[in-house]
Amino acid sequence: MPLKKVAIVGTGAIGGYYGACLARAGFDVHFLVRSDFAALKERGMRIKTPAHEWVDPRPKIYRTSEEIGACDLVIVALKATANGALDQLVSPLLSESTAILTLENGLGSDELLAEKFGAQRVIGGLCFICVYRTQPGEIMCLHPGSLSLAEFGRPRGPRLMELEAAFVRAGVKTHAADDLLALRWKKLVWNVPFNGLSIAAGGISTDRILALPELESEVRALMLEVIEGAAVFNFKIPIDFMEQQISSTRTMGAYKPSSLVDYLAGREVEVEAIWGEPLRRAEARGAELPRLRMLYSLLKALTSLPPSSAR
Amino acid sequence: MPLKKVAIVGTGAIGGYYGACLARAGFDVHFLVRSDFAALKERGMRIKTPAHEWVDPRPKIYRTSEEIGACDLVIVALKATANGALDQLVSPLLSESTAILTLENGLGSDELLAEKFGAQRVIGGLCFICVYRTQPGEIMCLHPGSLSLAEFGRPRGPRLMELEAAFVRAGVKTHAADDLLALRWKKLVWNVPFNGLSIAAGGISTDRILALPELESEVRALMLEVIEGAAVFNFKIPIDFMEQQISSTRTMGAYKPSSLVDYLAGREVEVEAIWGEPLRRAEARGAELPRLRMLYSLLKALTSLPPSSAR
Repeated sequence: MPLKKVAIVGTGAIGGYYGACLARAGFDVHFLVRSDFAALKERGMRIKTPAHEWVDPRPKIYRTSEEIGACDLVIVALKATANGALDQLVSPLLSESTAILTLENGLGSDELLAEKFGAQRVIGGLCFICVYRTQPGEIMCLHPGSLSLAEFGRPRGPRLMELEAAFVRAGVKTHAADDLLALRWKKLVWNVPFNGLSIAAGGISTDRILALPELESEVRALMLEVIEGAAVFNFKIPIDFMEQQISSTRTMGAYKPSSLVDYLAGREVEVEAIWGEPLRRAEARGAELPRLRMLYSLLKALTSLPPSSAR
Repeated sequence: MPLKKVAIVGTGAIGGYYGACLARAGFDVHFLVRSDFAALKERGMRIKTPAHEWVDPRPKIYRTSEEIGACDLVIVALKATANGALDQLVSPLLSESTAILTLENGLGSDELLAEKFGAQRVIGGLCFICVYRTQPGEIMCLHPGSLSLAEFGRPRGPRLMELEAAFVRAGVKTHAADDLLALRWKKLVWNVPFNGLSIAAGGISTDRILALPELESEVRALMLEVIEGAAVFNFKIPIDFMEQQISSTRTMGAYKPSSLVDYLAGREVEVEAIWGEPLRRAEARGAELPRLRMLYSLLKALTSLPPSSAR
């Protein structure tokens, strides 16, 4: 693909950050924006990091996909809970050769996009990053981390190499990989315990999870279950990876996982993508994951009530 | 024992209810009272049931055990979390032949009382009852249920028969049994899932636990783990019992388990007696109870924060 015109579907922290990086590197980035339209129009898009900040005073922002039209690359950075709107949001952005990169969490978005728009379009991206939206039009990136990319159902090819090069040009540490689902399970090793326990243990940040020995031991036990779930699909995740994830989380301080941020803000939590779908897939292959099942059940109950009325 | 003079240590819903029943039947019942002293002095003790109510206008209430002095029977109806005060509260009530009946929940209180005051004194009681304190000096009993009694570390004997007769005379459906620990594990089959999930799923009553299929399935899975924990001590709990417990819970409506009531009121929850101690005992014998361990860890985290600040 000649990668020039890019659409960002879902200008939250993730979509806004990577879109701004690509725009700064000279790509023609078009942001599909809902709630922050007025702020972005008025003050531009501000990206902060602990070391510096930069502003794009006039990001190309749109209220509808029709105004954007066909692109070379569509980056889907919605919450999985908003996938019901994909048809309407993505279809107007597609030409015959448009690639779709999904940065959504958990399991399910690759297959859904493949089914809707054609498997050959779909690339998955895993963002190992600490980034959040501080206010409308402003994004704070605490750790740029890295981005892993893989084609859906195929090993890497020229298109993926070009996409990797584009992100590298945009200053993002990027890895092209061959097995998208293996990557997704690997990311779940962190998301399942930390996003889940941060909600189920009463709305606490990662440092407080690791401060209670009983919860730290649940983190490990849940990680082992995810590793076991991955193993039934022949994805081997080394135990070392688990310890690395815990160690690096210790350096993150009072970090609120994205699901907790959503939960506390009263937004829908990606319960099915992060917990339900991995659980169902692994159970369907005969795995028994009692802790993941219990956590999923509790999260399902907790998120069916607004947090304020829950107690 | 000539069973005449009785002390109630802990005049909450359980202690107040059984004490009032015994007093109405002619026993000389002395209530050790803390927070409700003024209300009981002024308005007496009112016991309500869905069908009728009765008032003891002048219950014998005391602020200290020294004012009560030696009794034939001491009924300990404290929360397990108040056990630090046992020495001070119980010692003045003991003569050489005083029996101690503990109605505390979970595991641990029999052994603790035996260690402090002599194993020969200790009798355990399991209350299968729906009762709660509606306001100072007023107790509502929704289902009188039944009371199971057993000697600590011994089969039943004349003393237990006499105690059973006393409760029967007081209108309480009572069973004398031979194996106290087996009874305690049996009660945990209900307490572990319902008391625990009612807190961990966001402060919900039993009807809402059973309304969500995923949570109902966790109730069963936790019950099976308790049955497995009991089995390592050779206590056989039939699977039928589990289904009976779930069915009878369905008839209880929007019931708030006692631990949830404590939690919502900001009182300490009996996390160790109901979840921690059974878990440790079963694990020490080689049982693996992943759901009980996870629930215990979550409850430990949730109860280390006041509920209002937790979200």
